[in-house]
Amino acid sequence: MFKFVRVNMATKEISIDDVPEKYVGLGGRALTSTFINDEVKPTCHPLGKNNKIIFAPGLLSGTSAPNSGRLSVGTKSPLTGGIKESNTGGTFAQQMAKLGLKAIIIDDMPQEDKFYVIRVDKDGVYIDDAPEEIIGGCGNYKAVEVLKEKYGNNIGIALLGPAGEHRLPAANISFKDPDSNLRSAGRGGVGAVLGSKKVKAVVIDDTGTEAVPIADVEKFREASKAFAKALLDHPVSGQGLKAYGTNVLVNIINEAGGLPSYNFKEGRIDHADNISGETLNATITERGGEGKVSHSCHRGCIIQCSQWYADKEGKYITSGFEYETIWGLGADAGIEDLDAIAYIDREMDEVGVDSIEVAVAFATAMEGGLIPWGDGKAVLQIVKEMANPTPLARIIAGGASIVGKLCGLFRVPVVKDQAIPAYDPRSIKGIGLTYATTPMGADHTAGYCISGNILKIGADLDPLKKEGQIEYSRSMQIGTAALDSTGMCIFVYFGIGDNPDGYQALIDMINAQYGLSLTAEDVDKLGENVLKTELEFNKNAGFNNAHDRLPEFMEYEPLAPHGVVWDFTPEEIDQVLDFS
Amino acid sequence: MFKFVRVNMATKEISIDDVPEKYVGLGGRALTSTFINDEVKPTCHPLGKNNKIIFAPGLLSGTSAPNSGRLSVGTKSPLTGGIKESNTGGTFAQQMAKLGLKAIIIDDMPQEDKFYVIRVDKDGVYIDDAPEEIIGGCGNYKAVEVLKEKYGNNIGIALLGPAGEHRLPAANISFKDPDSNLRSAGRGGVGAVLGSKKVKAVVIDDTGTEAVPIADVEKFREASKAFAKALLDHPVSGQGLKAYGTNVLVNIINEAGGLPSYNFKEGRIDHADNISGETLNATITERGGEGKVSHSCHRGCIIQCSQWYADKEGKYITSGFEYETIWGLGADAGIEDLDAIAYIDREMDEVGVDSIEVAVAFATAMEGGLIPWGDGKAVLQIVKEMANPTPLARIIAGGASIVGKLCGLFRVPVVKDQAIPAYDPRSIKGIGLTYATTPMGADHTAGYCISGNILKIGADLDPLKKEGQIEYSRSMQIGTAALDSTGMCIFVYFGIGDNPDGYQALIDMINAQYGLSLTAEDVDKLGENVLKTELEFNKNAGFNNAHDRLPEFMEYEPLAPHGVVWDFTPEEIDQVLDFS
Repeated sequence: MFKFVRVNMATKEISIDDVPEKYVGLGGRALTSTFINDEVKPTCHPLGKNNKIIFAPGLLSGTSAPNSGRLSVGTKSPLTGGIKESNTGGTFAQQMAKLGLKAIIIDDMPQEDKFYVIRVDKDGVYIDDAPEEIIGGCGNYKAVEVLKEKYGNNIGIALLGPAGEHRLPAANISFKDPDSNLRSAGRGGVGAVLGSKKVKAVVIDDTGTEAVPIADVEKFREASKAFAKALLDHPVSGQGLKAYGTNVLVNIINEAGGLPSYNFKEGRIDHADNISGETLNATITERGGEGKVSHSCHRGCIIQCSQWYADKEGKYITSGFEYETIWGLGADAGIEDLDAIAYIDREMDEVGVDSIEVAVAFATAMEGGLIPWGDGKAVLQIVKEMANPTPLARIIAGGASIVGKLCGLFRVPVVKDQAIPAYDPRSIKGIGLTYATTPMGADHTAGYCISGNILKIGADLDPLKKEGQIEYSRSMQIGTAALDSTGMCIFVYFGIGDNPDGYQALIDMINAQYGLSLTAEDVDKLGENVLKTELEFNKNAGFNNAHDRLPEFMEYEPLAPHGVVWDFTPEEIDQVLDFS
Repeated sequence: MFKFVRVNMATKEISIDDVPEKYVGLGGRALTSTFINDEVKPTCHPLGKNNKIIFAPGLLSGTSAPNSGRLSVGTKSPLTGGIKESNTGGTFAQQMAKLGLKAIIIDDMPQEDKFYVIRVDKDGVYIDDAPEEIIGGCGNYKAVEVLKEKYGNNIGIALLGPAGEHRLPAANISFKDPDSNLRSAGRGGVGAVLGSKKVKAVVIDDTGTEAVPIADVEKFREASKAFAKALLDHPVSGQGLKAYGTNVLVNIINEAGGLPSYNFKEGRIDHADNISGETLNATITERGGEGKVSHSCHRGCIIQCSQWYADKEGKYITSGFEYETIWGLGADAGIEDLDAIAYIDREMDEVGVDSIEVAVAFATAMEGGLIPWGDGKAVLQIVKEMANPTPLARIIAGGASIVGKLCGLFRVPVVKDQAIPAYDPRSIKGIGLTYATTPMGADHTAGYCISGNILKIGADLDPLKKEGQIEYSRSMQIGTAALDSTGMCIFVYFGIGDNPDGYQALIDMINAQYGLSLTAEDVDKLGENVLKTELEFNKNAGFNNAHDRLPEFMEYEPLAPHGVVWDFTPEEIDQVLDFS
């Protein structure tokens, strides 16, 4: 029987109860969003005592299903003011599932100015004082080692960095991966919420647990095999991501003229070769040492888009070195050197901030004249300062929207105050509809229309044209909301988007695990319901259609090289998630 | 025949046209809000080319009606994201009226990085290059002298300070008063909008104009006399404000337990005597020299709540030294010395920022640990830095909402991202309804319920109780919207709130000037229509009822000494401006 863990940080009360009826069939994003909509007052202050934060593994997490180890973190976002599901790899989801935990919910906040560690194992849940040495500026890599030393090597960790202690709007929550490096629930300032609750870390130990129960083991094994085959058969999920990481996209998106550069003033850069996935692969390979071109962010991942990037001496610098980070620093902020970007990425992991939000904030600040364009040294220094924030570090960690306001700019690439990621909506129109309408604020992972616009997986749309994009963004958002509820990495879509057998195998795994007989329609319905729930919360939190708009400058500043503007009408945009 | 002046800062085109039919009967706020709702796209970026800014004198401005020289400045606010009317004294409104100008509208923005002066006189409207010496950090007092030297002593001036050049969110627009000192259209960041349009100043010269035409001179004279009598007969408008300025309120509101102190953690301070109106009066009187206890912000003001505050040597420091500023720095930020506060007030006028927004931002930053409590020296230094903003100066000039976000606080006293002024809504409940519901963001001048709650003018409500407050805030907001359209200072309400003859005299003046026969009901209807227009704009800009809420902490943090919380329900709040 699955359990709900609730921890009240004001009273220090802990409860471990059966999962309430309503949530029994839910996991991941479906669970976190339903819960937040049910229990959090939409107009509450995100950093006040009435906000809650919830961790939930997906439906398939903890099983042997490939790529099913993703965790959903739900809360009211201090960055957007709306509902948030931030999704991450690491070991945490699988360890929760093995402990039979469907949710860990952290509520209220202490009066005292003191940080705590929440500890979860098979015997119970405890609140400890946080080790002093990891408070007040300690980097996340060291904090992981300290916590492992104290609690054992087998623990999973959800970790608040120094930026989160200061409740900075771009603060993330870091999660220990199988090799004790870091993955992030990056977006929406979820770290600031954990910081407001004075939780420095949640450590989880699944020692002594059994395997996750499966209703029909044989059917599960077969479906799992078919699913793995689908992933490995596709050139993107089977080969491209493994070789070049997500950074395979630099050349692709640059070629498409959709690589937002110099604070979204250009759609293509000349120095793509410096920072491309191909260069990343060659550099790692050439340098040898601790570098690896492919790596899993959680056990059972067979796509392995992560990698270890090493310096010239072969010494590990950073891992999970993603396209969006490299784009943000390399193209949007114009830092032309991959090593410089790697050190900044490492430092963002150390202090615990969302690398997309912060990279875009830097580019915005460069346009505002606060920092010279492309100045990697200045950027690295300012990120370091986020551990004990100087005023400028505080401004940047406030995110792109606040930087734009403090610099008096109108070219501020945000939707719902969240930074627009690495794909310009003027030249890749489908993704613009996702940015505009997802309840999450600008977020490519909420409905990755790059797939059918550029990669031509699951659809074949002209990225420069409006035709078919409304329906496409809607279907991608519905599908993603469902996928985010299973614990699956969204990259499995590349393997199943054009492969009905692969998609069926995914549904078969769920049915086999729970003894259900869900159909593809049921799954769609689940995704739609998740979106409706999130939209309801946002409406009650103060959002209406006027918030579902891209930054106005995109309507009148044409993007080179295609000379295109954002030309969807409000009425068209409002159709995307109109379920009435 | 009245005229509309339009200046396009992109093309430099200027037009001077008859007033469009729709706007003929409107003035002040009625005109600016109707115009902004008609012509500005509600979802436009406030600092982008599609925002406009409009200056409009009230219906009675330019006549000999007492206290009728107020100007309305309308735009989409970069601070709140909603519609804004910011109201100011000075000579500008009367000079516009004498030139027969109902509106000056500034549209679009230059491509070039260069500031301009718009010049208006009886012969036409011109765009000049701004004098170089007043750009890049020049204080406003000096800028006024430079402009007078260039354009003559008779000019009226709307002036952008250095903070406005940087388009900082708290930037105001300063207006020259009859003695060449400064008044401000303070709230909502209207200076940032003028800055985005690269207009350093609008100078206006009414030399060679005739008196404003009056349809029935005799009737006007009589009504004007009756109106003046009403103002002078009341102890507040006739004596209190003249002797102690608006700062008469420190002792009154402190006594009432409604003086928000130390970032809204307390409702009363021990050091009220240091900063009270009585002390202000005594200090000015004692010091002599250039100090004056009373002074008019525009010709024809008979209330004279302004004053000149001088230093120990009798040298002028600042004027228009208002209660809200003294409260913000003295109680909310805990600066216990009136001279220190005066120098900061002067410096805020020099750089051109809203003294309410900035004072509250300082108090919020003190809670966030950025500045020690009550440190007047640090505050003065940071305000000076707003002329060429350091990161910390930029943060503070971003206003209280941004400071709250960058410090990760939940105790952030704002509504619609605008700072709550000098009256705590927990212990003076009527004003809380105005803060919550006015389309302007937290603004005491939008419906000054202090009147019937504390001063017992126009109503007699218990400030600690909810009874009668909903209807009262509504009627005050309606009345104020009408009053803001006449060019009248809102303080005339003290003279006419309990005096039907005084109120009738106001209506008689309007009728006599325009040959109309408006009734009190017509005036109410005007006020209601203004509010409806503003609400319509805001709805289309992205506001819904969830924005009409006070900061959540006021619902659960009781305010000393009365131990009261904010206890209106959402449903009750939503009744205030429900005109459906």
